[in-house]
Amino acid sequence: MTIETTVDTAVFERRESEARSYCRSFPVVFTSAENATLTDQNGREYIDFLAGCSSLNYGHNDPDMKAALIDYISGDGVAHGLDMFTSAKADFLETFEELILKPRGMDHKVMFTGPTGTNAVEAAMKLARKVTGRNTIIAFTNGFHGMTLGALSATGNSGKRDGASTPLTGIARMPYEGAFGAAADTLAQIEMMLSNPSSGLDAPAAIIVEPVQGEGGLNAASKKWMQGIARLAKKHGALLIIDDIQAGIGRTGRFFSTEEFGIDPDMITLAKSLSGMGLPFATLLLKPELDVWQPAEHNGTFRGNNHAFVTATVALKKFWADDTFVKQLGDKAAFLERRLELMRDKFLSGATIKGRGMMRGIDVGSGELAAEICADCFDNGLIIETSGAHDEVVKVLAPLTIPMEQFSVGLDILESAIAENTSFLRIAAE
Amino acid sequence: MTIETTVDTAVFERRESEARSYCRSFPVVFTSAENATLTDQNGREYIDFLAGCSSLNYGHNDPDMKAALIDYISGDGVAHGLDMFTSAKADFLETFEELILKPRGMDHKVMFTGPTGTNAVEAAMKLARKVTGRNTIIAFTNGFHGMTLGALSATGNSGKRDGASTPLTGIARMPYEGAFGAAADTLAQIEMMLSNPSSGLDAPAAIIVEPVQGEGGLNAASKKWMQGIARLAKKHGALLIIDDIQAGIGRTGRFFSTEEFGIDPDMITLAKSLSGMGLPFATLLLKPELDVWQPAEHNGTFRGNNHAFVTATVALKKFWADDTFVKQLGDKAAFLERRLELMRDKFLSGATIKGRGMMRGIDVGSGELAAEICADCFDNGLIIETSGAHDEVVKVLAPLTIPMEQFSVGLDILESAIAENTSFLRIAAE
Amino acid sequence: MTIETTVDTAVFERRESEARSYCRSFPVVFTSAENATLTDQNGREYIDFLAGCSSLNYGHNDPDMKAALIDYISGDGVAHGLDMFTSAKADFLETFEELILKPRGMDHKVMFTGPTGTNAVEAAMKLARKVTGRNTIIAFTNGFHGMTLGALSATGNSGKRDGASTPLTGIARMPYEGAFGAAADTLAQIEMMLSNPSSGLDAPAAIIVEPVQGEGGLNAASKKWMQGIARLAKKHGALLIIDDIQAGIGRTGRFFSTEEFGIDPDMITLAKSLSGMGLPFATLLLKPELDVWQPAEHNGTFRGNNHAFVTATVALKKFWADDTFVKQLGDKAAFLERRLELMRDKFLSGATIKGRGMMRGIDVGSGELAAEICADCFDNGLIIETSGAHDEVVKVLAPLTIPMEQFSVGLDILESAIAENTSFLRIAAE
Amino acid sequence: MTIETTVDTAVFERRESEARSYCRSFPVVFTSAENATLTDQNGREYIDFLAGCSSLNYGHNDPDMKAALIDYISGDGVAHGLDMFTSAKADFLETFEELILKPRGMDHKVMFTGPTGTNAVEAAMKLARKVTGRNTIIAFTNGFHGMTLGALSATGNSGKRDGASTPLTGIARMPYEGAFGAAADTLAQIEMMLSNPSSGLDAPAAIIVEPVQGEGGLNAASKKWMQGIARLAKKHGALLIIDDIQAGIGRTGRFFSTEEFGIDPDMITLAKSLSGMGLPFATLLLKPELDVWQPAEHNGTFRGNNHAFVTATVALKKFWADDTFVKQLGDKAAFLERRLELMRDKFLSGATIKGRGMMRGIDVGSGELAAEICADCFDNGLIIETSGAHDEVVKVLAPLTIPMEQFSVGLDILESAIAENTSFLRIAAE
Repeated sequence: MTIETTVDTAVFERRESEARSYCRSFPVVFTSAENATLTDQNGREYIDFLAGCSSLNYGHNDPDMKAALIDYISGDGVAHGLDMFTSAKADFLETFEELILKPRGMDHKVMFTGPTGTNAVEAAMKLARKVTGRNTIIAFTNGFHGMTLGALSATGNSGKRDGASTPLTGIARMPYEGAFGAAADTLAQIEMMLSNPSSGLDAPAAIIVEPVQGEGGLNAASKKWMQGIARLAKKHGALLIIDDIQAGIGRTGRFFSTEEFGIDPDMITLAKSLSGMGLPFATLLLKPELDVWQPAEHNGTFRGNNHAFVTATVALKKFWADDTFVKQLGDKAAFLERRLELMRDKFLSGATIKGRGMMRGIDVGSGELAAEICADCFDNGLIIETSGAHDEVVKVLAPLTIPMEQFSVGLDILESAIAENTSFLRIAAE
Repeated sequence: MTIETTVDTAVFERRESEARSYCRSFPVVFTSAENATLTDQNGREYIDFLAGCSSLNYGHNDPDMKAALIDYISGDGVAHGLDMFTSAKADFLETFEELILKPRGMDHKVMFTGPTGTNAVEAAMKLARKVTGRNTIIAFTNGFHGMTLGALSATGNSGKRDGASTPLTGIARMPYEGAFGAAADTLAQIEMMLSNPSSGLDAPAAIIVEPVQGEGGLNAASKKWMQGIARLAKKHGALLIIDDIQAGIGRTGRFFSTEEFGIDPDMITLAKSLSGMGLPFATLLLKPELDVWQPAEHNGTFRGNNHAFVTATVALKKFWADDTFVKQLGDKAAFLERRLELMRDKFLSGATIKGRGMMRGIDVGSGELAAEICADCFDNGLIIETSGAHDEVVKVLAPLTIPMEQFSVGLDILESAIAENTSFLRIAAE
Repeated sequence: MTIETTVDTAVFERRESEARSYCRSFPVVFTSAENATLTDQNGREYIDFLAGCSSLNYGHNDPDMKAALIDYISGDGVAHGLDMFTSAKADFLETFEELILKPRGMDHKVMFTGPTGTNAVEAAMKLARKVTGRNTIIAFTNGFHGMTLGALSATGNSGKRDGASTPLTGIARMPYEGAFGAAADTLAQIEMMLSNPSSGLDAPAAIIVEPVQGEGGLNAASKKWMQGIARLAKKHGALLIIDDIQAGIGRTGRFFSTEEFGIDPDMITLAKSLSGMGLPFATLLLKPELDVWQPAEHNGTFRGNNHAFVTATVALKKFWADDTFVKQLGDKAAFLERRLELMRDKFLSGATIKGRGMMRGIDVGSGELAAEICADCFDNGLIIETSGAHDEVVKVLAPLTIPMEQFSVGLDILESAIAENTSFLRIAAE
Repeated sequence: MTIETTVDTAVFERRESEARSYCRSFPVVFTSAENATLTDQNGREYIDFLAGCSSLNYGHNDPDMKAALIDYISGDGVAHGLDMFTSAKADFLETFEELILKPRGMDHKVMFTGPTGTNAVEAAMKLARKVTGRNTIIAFTNGFHGMTLGALSATGNSGKRDGASTPLTGIARMPYEGAFGAAADTLAQIEMMLSNPSSGLDAPAAIIVEPVQGEGGLNAASKKWMQGIARLAKKHGALLIIDDIQAGIGRTGRFFSTEEFGIDPDMITLAKSLSGMGLPFATLLLKPELDVWQPAEHNGTFRGNNHAFVTATVALKKFWADDTFVKQLGDKAAFLERRLELMRDKFLSGATIKGRGMMRGIDVGSGELAAEICADCFDNGLIIETSGAHDEVVKVLAPLTIPMEQFSVGLDILESAIAENTSFLRIAAE
């Protein structure tokens, strides 16, 4: 790998905390970006298959969002107004109601939490406990929900959990679909725990679940399993919280990742791609009967990111007013699946294709191999990352708006990297 | 109060969660803002003495920040890049190092946490526990540190705490300066607790303290007390965390609210006004020897808000390159103090002037009276809020950049509201 | 049921807390007891198949223990001496070492905790956390370990857990053998949780397990499963705590219930039958390398019940000096098993015989039926109780010393009660 | 110090856990005891000023209790019957009602918890949380309430707390009377915390307090302070739990240590001297309206120590049927106070006499000095221990039944030890 200038990165080494992460895999200085292309300070271009971990579903700097935002700023639109009423917020709410909630028959209310996913998760957990008067929340193996103390309790990753340096409480951990192998019926096991009054599982306030586990290895729950979880929640008086922060906003093919499942979540968390342009923005959707918050009971300074309201409104109108985008997504996802299957069949016989929609990856069996593949990709101009408990899944999270040709080029780079890094396997097999 | 259009607010009633707060006090729809002036959809202008709870220390939409941001967006500058290196981040770090850290002899490193104050507080709490291997963190009566589970544990407000609906742990609560009356030496009491091996106060990982308690009633700690806290922390092996989210970035007269105290905090949290333009942005400053984070140990999607890097860099260069701004602040703070003293002397004999610098208020003795005063102000075009355990302090948090004339007009409105709402007191006294 | 005098029970209604339990099932006033026979104030005799929930493995008032205790008291032997050295304690320790520890090759040290099982469990949990520096302790579905806050966290029963009225923390709940049906390999599932760094199961300080779950339904773990648990504990750096409070001291056929399993527990809790005569007494056996307690770090007033030392020493010498008792137990257990199988085959086709050794029962399928059977037994002079998450197991816990003839009579009463209460089933089947 | 035989102590070194404590100060093997005299295996006699930490208020082996217990055992009285009705329990309850509860106008019910003080405390804490629906319990600096996880949370001693090796939660720590020096009004401070909605002190379920802190340094609360605590509890909806485990049963002059205070505790814990003869026994007294326990909600194996019922009944009848004993206690306490004052005046000018009634001590200013005094006493045949956060109080806890002559001899030994160990002070002063 060649980094042509190192002048600028010295300040990061000198002054940025060791907690930094992605910059370690891609140690160049980026200056500009447009749709699926990132450009570094030396003018080198990279295809972006990371997309801000699904925060850039519409790509970088969508021209319509840019224009609206520049227009808003130029006109001295309110940038920060705490949670006061602004025209930008009204526009967003009305658009969200018209284009998202109403067509799906959802009567949910919208809570603007602090503009990060973890904050929306914290709000959901608080509310579930407040409404039910119960404490335990069921979360799943390989789940990822955030880094603040409440959300972190629900997160499974031990490296992240150890960071708390204090016991994480209030969560009962249950196996996600497939966590104990294909043969084990985890739904039945959870039901046995819930139904056995001596199981030690206290009556749960909520079940929080990602329909596709973005950080946990692109495990995609089946319709049957998700329906089972919804049924168990209802039967046992627990609220169902869908964490759609990474899988939502089109990533799996529809606005919400659960639309094809026919379930009716009590709460849904959204963040990442919600603003459309990668600006900090998060929300919790909640059934109106759950909206028992006292005024300011869960407050915060940045609960109304007006710039994000502006771009999010554009995003909704541009992509979700009709079904054009959904159809495109279906085609793109099918293309992606075929390409990944071909790679597997040629180079990784027996490997598992993970995920759903445009949130896919290949489990290459080891974190080391996955890391080498990603490093090779980066050398060849593709930004791509791993996922999973052992970082063993090479994860494709391209912007949903990526042009087909560029998508194909990116996948070619990935395929070459896989080919090169698995040649020893084929040689060994000969 | 007259609201000329109600069309737009219906969507808030219909779809925004009951958790909303400030909009209840100021139920108009704002459309634009410039420095200390907010304008609603009917064109009515309001003087802003709330300033996003100190998130808008440089006022709304500073023209230089606007210009730089528009320029950045127009040039397809990276808006979202997770925590990857960008030129905007490099610029911010270099400027922060040159203008803030170096001149103050600070070798702290900068951790970009999720872009909300509560996230920076959570990071500080995690790190203090990780470094010391201890669990208990000392926080203070009337302290406010955030709404996520860890930060909420440190927050004193019972309404906020009840929202957790689960026990909040890991905090030992100690009295802030003056919490037990002027006669009680709270430093001595804390020392007695720390030195008594049977006190039940476990050896603390950290002491987290706001030099001025923004939400807790504008209680301003003295230099002597803050030095005492710093000494106690050091003596007992606890890290000193200064929560400067509300009091920092010039609000009390200097960049950090502790500069005149001669103490050396282990960690400092910054958020609110850090971006300069009210964009979500937060950071934790930490001594380099504390930077034992593993890569990605405390991660998050929005840890690098590049738009905020751009505006924050402008803010640092514009206001902190020399001491001009500090001098202006001193003058403005003196003016504010005189005005408040006059109001007290004329209408609220015996009332206490609270706070420090441009973070001041009057304790009017009851939340009801304070609310009436603020409501009157709003009717007369001034946005101002209360603070304190009983919302008994009328709080002046004007932009630091407010023109003197407008500042004076705002204070006139406040004075009239106080006069009107306290007339019964004077009549009763006659 | 006939209670001939009610005079004496009034005081219980009037003054004893509603927390009382067993007296509700057997509402007569007992005055004396001898081996397996209890006598009430009206002179009526009952056969005791409850045996103080396995606290009276040697029956009531063993004549040799009685004699030794009376002798000790008459000679002004120290009754209470905190944990000071007494000749009675020395005798116990030497006898325990000679007859129990040495022959089994155990180098464990003996910790005298407060004289209740829950206290021994609390000590074990503290020590496991102290030694490993980890927090989470794995406990099992249907486990029962005590009522104080630490032990209660490990207990599975929801009725008991609810009594805490505060969240119970520090425990990860895993499925006991068979908890998810015969097909599910719970060992493999636990291993998957332990080996997956994103499972959300934190590295455990200990695994605490009852080889037979006395309160949880007489679930008896197999040798293979217990060896698997021991292996998992070792592999993952967790201490293995065997809770032998109910299953130990001969109840399953040997002194410890794990002797035939070839495992080497790090800690073993003993209580209930340890004193031999039903006196409060508990101990924690711990590997010498784990004995890192500071002096008095886990103290307590009644840690040396000298009366219990005296009777326990007699019990050890009388029953465990050679293998006579063990052989008798084997014969009795075989007899009991045959009788229960006959009952099942005649009246409860398909019912499961639960437990091991002299700790057996029949799962009659419902708590209502089990309660009726027990009530009928009591009417006919047999004291017997239920067990299990739904109280669905009729549990035989006769004194190990019960004469065969009396044992047979008791089982006849049980058989009649089963016959009578299941007649409707057979009629329905015809 | 000379230990004439060491043969017997080898087994303790070899097999008893390092957690052992008192035996370290008094490393001889005791064989018998009678009233205030302990005799070791070499026939040496010791005067007992420790009295099982107030578990032997009636001395060792009271002849009437002995006789009754031997009679009960000889007659095959039920030794262990779980919590079933026995004649021994009925006798105890009736006697306790007649001699203790009725004369004091107390309608409390009696809950037999596990037979240790910590278990009674755990029950009280559970019940307070269950009844109030609140979590936080206020406990005090230097308080001692037991070693199991719930009670340990309420205990102040850091050495004991560290043993938990897990965070102790659910307690808010408040200053006991005098904890911040004579000038500080701790009642007023607690009230300020309770009344300030932003204090961070959550609404408490209970206040648990020892009227005299036995382990914490013999701090004796004043009538005024205890009344204030009772008033605060009532005003703020918290239950008042008096922990009378060490100070009760005559130790301060009456049966309960709070009788002269005119307060009406919601719950009272009793243990230690309750059995009269040092047998494990504990109870929780609770107001009948609080008796909302479900059957068996707080259960346990040894909740009915029948031997203890027998001896406790004798104790009540012998000592509490009239006011003879109380008068004797008054005389003895006055004598003790005079003797301690003389010692102070002669040898420890300025030292504080601590405690109340027959629970007294001298604060000699350092743990080292106190330890040396106690060691000297032991060499001269007096068993006496220290108390306090720094073990700085030499504590006199003689049996209340000690003959005056022997009491005087014991105090002579103490005086000599003080004289000898403080001679350097007087020499230095000359």
